[in-house]
Amino acid sequence: MILPQLTYLASICANSGITEAILSPGSRSAPISLAFIRHPDIHCRIIPDERSAAFIAMGIAQQRNKPVVLICTSGSAALNYGPAIAEAYYQQIPLLVLTADRPPEWIEQWDGQTIRQDNLYSAFIKSSYVFPDEVLHPDKLWHAKRITKEAINLTHEAPMGPVHINIPLREPFYPNQEEQYPFEITDLEPDLDQHQTSTSLKEESVIQVITELKKYRKILILVGQQRPDKQIRTLLKTIAENHQAVVVTDVISNMSQECTIEHHDFFLGKTSYEIAPDLMISFGKSIISKALKLFLRKSDTAHWHIQAQGQVPDTFQHLNQIIRLHPATFLDFFQKETKAVDSVFENEWLKKNKSIKNILPKMLEKAPFGELKALDNVLKSLPNYGKIHIANSMAIRNVNFLGLSGDDLEIICNRGTSGIDGSNSTAVGCTFTTKEPVVLLTGDMAFFYDRNAFWHQYNLPNLRIILFNNHGGGIFRMIDGPAALPEMAEYFETHQKLDGSNLAREFGFQYHLAQNMEELQTALSDFFHTSINAKLLEIKTDSETNTKALKMIKEALSGD
Amino acid sequence: MILPQLTYLASICANSGITEAILSPGSRSAPISLAFIRHPDIHCRIIPDERSAAFIAMGIAQQRNKPVVLICTSGSAALNYGPAIAEAYYQQIPLLVLTADRPPEWIEQWDGQTIRQDNLYSAFIKSSYVFPDEVLHPDKLWHAKRITKEAINLTHEAPMGPVHINIPLREPFYPNQEEQYPFEITDLEPDLDQHQTSTSLKEESVIQVITELKKYRKILILVGQQRPDKQIRTLLKTIAENHQAVVVTDVISNMSQECTIEHHDFFLGKTSYEIAPDLMISFGKSIISKALKLFLRKSDTAHWHIQAQGQVPDTFQHLNQIIRLHPATFLDFFQKETKAVDSVFENEWLKKNKSIKNILPKMLEKAPFGELKALDNVLKSLPNYGKIHIANSMAIRNVNFLGLSGDDLEIICNRGTSGIDGSNSTAVGCTFTTKEPVVLLTGDMAFFYDRNAFWHQYNLPNLRIILFNNHGGGIFRMIDGPAALPEMAEYFETHQKLDGSNLAREFGFQYHLAQNMEELQTALSDFFHTSINAKLLEIKTDSETNTKALKMIKEALSGD
Repeated sequence: MILPQLTYLASICANSGITEAILSPGSRSAPISLAFIRHPDIHCRIIPDERSAAFIAMGIAQQRNKPVVLICTSGSAALNYGPAIAEAYYQQIPLLVLTADRPPEWIEQWDGQTIRQDNLYSAFIKSSYVFPDEVLHPDKLWHAKRITKEAINLTHEAPMGPVHINIPLREPFYPNQEEQYPFEITDLEPDLDQHQTSTSLKEESVIQVITELKKYRKILILVGQQRPDKQIRTLLKTIAENHQAVVVTDVISNMSQECTIEHHDFFLGKTSYEIAPDLMISFGKSIISKALKLFLRKSDTAHWHIQAQGQVPDTFQHLNQIIRLHPATFLDFFQKETKAVDSVFENEWLKKNKSIKNILPKMLEKAPFGELKALDNVLKSLPNYGKIHIANSMAIRNVNFLGLSGDDLEIICNRGTSGIDGSNSTAVGCTFTTKEPVVLLTGDMAFFYDRNAFWHQYNLPNLRIILFNNHGGGIFRMIDGPAALPEMAEYFETHQKLDGSNLAREFGFQYHLAQNMEELQTALSDFFHTSINAKLLEIKTDSETNTKALKMIKEALSGD
Repeated sequence: MILPQLTYLASICANSGITEAILSPGSRSAPISLAFIRHPDIHCRIIPDERSAAFIAMGIAQQRNKPVVLICTSGSAALNYGPAIAEAYYQQIPLLVLTADRPPEWIEQWDGQTIRQDNLYSAFIKSSYVFPDEVLHPDKLWHAKRITKEAINLTHEAPMGPVHINIPLREPFYPNQEEQYPFEITDLEPDLDQHQTSTSLKEESVIQVITELKKYRKILILVGQQRPDKQIRTLLKTIAENHQAVVVTDVISNMSQECTIEHHDFFLGKTSYEIAPDLMISFGKSIISKALKLFLRKSDTAHWHIQAQGQVPDTFQHLNQIIRLHPATFLDFFQKETKAVDSVFENEWLKKNKSIKNILPKMLEKAPFGELKALDNVLKSLPNYGKIHIANSMAIRNVNFLGLSGDDLEIICNRGTSGIDGSNSTAVGCTFTTKEPVVLLTGDMAFFYDRNAFWHQYNLPNLRIILFNNHGGGIFRMIDGPAALPEMAEYFETHQKLDGSNLAREFGFQYHLAQNMEELQTALSDFFHTSINAKLLEIKTDSETNTKALKMIKEALSGD
């Protein structure tokens, strides 16, 4: 029997512009899955491990900038969505999470795959709804429609994020063989689609902000994580080239350019606070550099944050103005209204950055073969367009040290919760949205943690994985606390033994191994050429050598 | 700097009899891990994937019947514990879950690996505590001790279960090289250790129960999931042999004997309700057989449930008495106070069961090579002592069809939430508690889902895995709804392509493949002999053949 509430659910999703769903196998969820599988305008993919499924959906939604549907069965399946839902919540990525459930009378009666599913994702979800378990009364069918529309709207209302609908289902719920879903639904009114608004400063605020801005001569603009944006990129270029501010970027800000500061992680550790700004203006989400965070926290700096909606954190402990504008609107205003900054201040930043830019290649040249040197070569070989996914822990830190940018590159990292748990899957989701190269730079811990990202039936022809395998959590050798402990190797570094060759064989990936510079260069020579499935380049290095090289380089550079 | 609250935490755990901890790598959690690693009386193991780590801890705690400590870092790591915590909650297995956190001032400030961790496991945890973030005031140190003791007590107070302590930590938190943990703590009073109690029926209740019992002539005792118990086993034997009740067991009840009914799944589907009991007495947790559930729900049967503490479900929709006694106490009383049941009623059940027992081997003999026939051979080859772990979905259903029991066997299955997500890990945890054989019977979906169970440094010499690989979710072919759908193969059965050979190579397991009866018998001939690491026997079968064989056998037998 086709349940009308599920027909409406799929239809309203399609009518609202949702085009993709990620399903995991299950019996209780089958009727929900079927409604989406049979809907002509929704593309469904099936991913067995729900933990990976949810990160894959997130990877798609991140690129599409619109909600992707997730469908799983009742019970612990839904809990496996947890990590990705938290990441999507903090990264503000829209997901519509549909969990099948038993009807309320069978909860807590020891039936199989039955847990308490209401509010399952309590702190990491924009809202959680319970679908009617039957729709015999017309108000219940209206309620199902109302919930669907409201939930979809909520996913993409700023700040975007995941929304949950728990769907209790009572048997019979499989369609008969001859039954057709009546997707051509006309009674979908009232339509709740929201119209876009824009915000601008009121006259008196404009005057106030101009007056305030004039007080400062050492202005630093800091860009946190955000997706590429050509308009903002151009505005920042103008501002930097007109000497109106020092522009500092993180690799995940997707805003690094010739005129911006990107090597601060190397020089801020030992810098005196003389180069501190008197006003720091930030937009975007989090930044990676701990040196920069600590530097700004200790500096006596006013801090304005530009963000149109949503909660604003005080990452640097000096936040004193929140300006509720789109960053482009603010930067345009800033560019028109401010004068040149203090030239000594500006020159100090530019000089330090340039100095690193000059010395770093020489230092890398001299360094023995290791993670950083290999990464440097990899970054230089990357295609100049496409999506670069970077795993958490050392992978993202190392890329941030070396810097990476390009007009047609997008750099992506799961910095919402900064876990190592879903980076493969996020990259796999991304490959479902583009024919451009999708490159994943990852360490062995993150890579093997999320290996079920590849456990499905879909070829990944544009996926290129570069696996830095030092057989453990090299990051712990970089942190002074654990590095000094006798327990370091066994309990922190983990000493995991796997390498990528078995996994490549298992999933039909083309496999390359590089253990020295020559092998690396050979492997890279045609690594980004087209193929019918993913390619995996494994770069094996020694954790101790890596740590020594990185420390040596950091010390040499920070002493400048 | 050694934080005194963490010294107390580890010391109180050790003093309360906790001997094992499962850690996952992390920086914020390092000080907690260190306190446990350095404690002389606590054995720590490190498991990188938190989802597996938690199921492994559960597998240990299940055997030890006392809490195991889990330690992870802040952020999404803790969410990966979710599925195992829900399973432990419903299976009533004690776990002490310690999650590291940033101090409260850094929550929601976009710092790395920082999410809202209070009440993270809201509906699936007995209680959730927040540790003091510093202990400068003496009351705070007292509070830390108080929380620790209370949390430990709660884990093993019936019904047992998981308890969470969220531990905010402010830097510096790594010990200096020369620092020693002062574990010899003497001021641990007041000691909250709880004394055991026992319950018995009051005089008037005894009379009432005897009077009630006399009303019934068709008494059926149904045992749900529980661990082996020799006393209960003997009592059930006496009752069955004295004709005082028909005793029906599920394979997970660990109570099947010559005199009990275990093949009801085959004959109840088409049985008339003439053999329905007039009183059904149950104890233990859930049962597997859907046929039995439906039969009892539709029968007009009084239902008494025996359970000393905790919530009692009404699985069969007829519950009318809850008797708050230990099952052994009740059965002893029952055995002394009741007479023989209606002999026609008893004989019908025994006859039907015996008939299956006689015909089943002949049917299996005739059947083509497939899952059920292979399983039958495997079950006959099992060692007669040890732990048999069975994965959810078809694996446990098939074992329940065929029946399995032994005086020195324990049969284990994650029927708390009945997910496929942690069966490898639960078995791995079990191997850490015994030198007896630990056998895991699993399907390919459950097996590959939880493959990170094996991603660690520990050899598993007594683990024997029997993997029934039909390349997909064969269960969907057994459910009439999805089986009839054109989408069955692609979207439900999943068609996963992996086999176990790569995995075996990767983790150093001895690998055997059986694709016909001859190969199976050769493989089984020395499969349970000792080895230095785990062995994996993969039995490849065809999903369609399996379904046909099972349907044929079920139909032939239920027609009896």
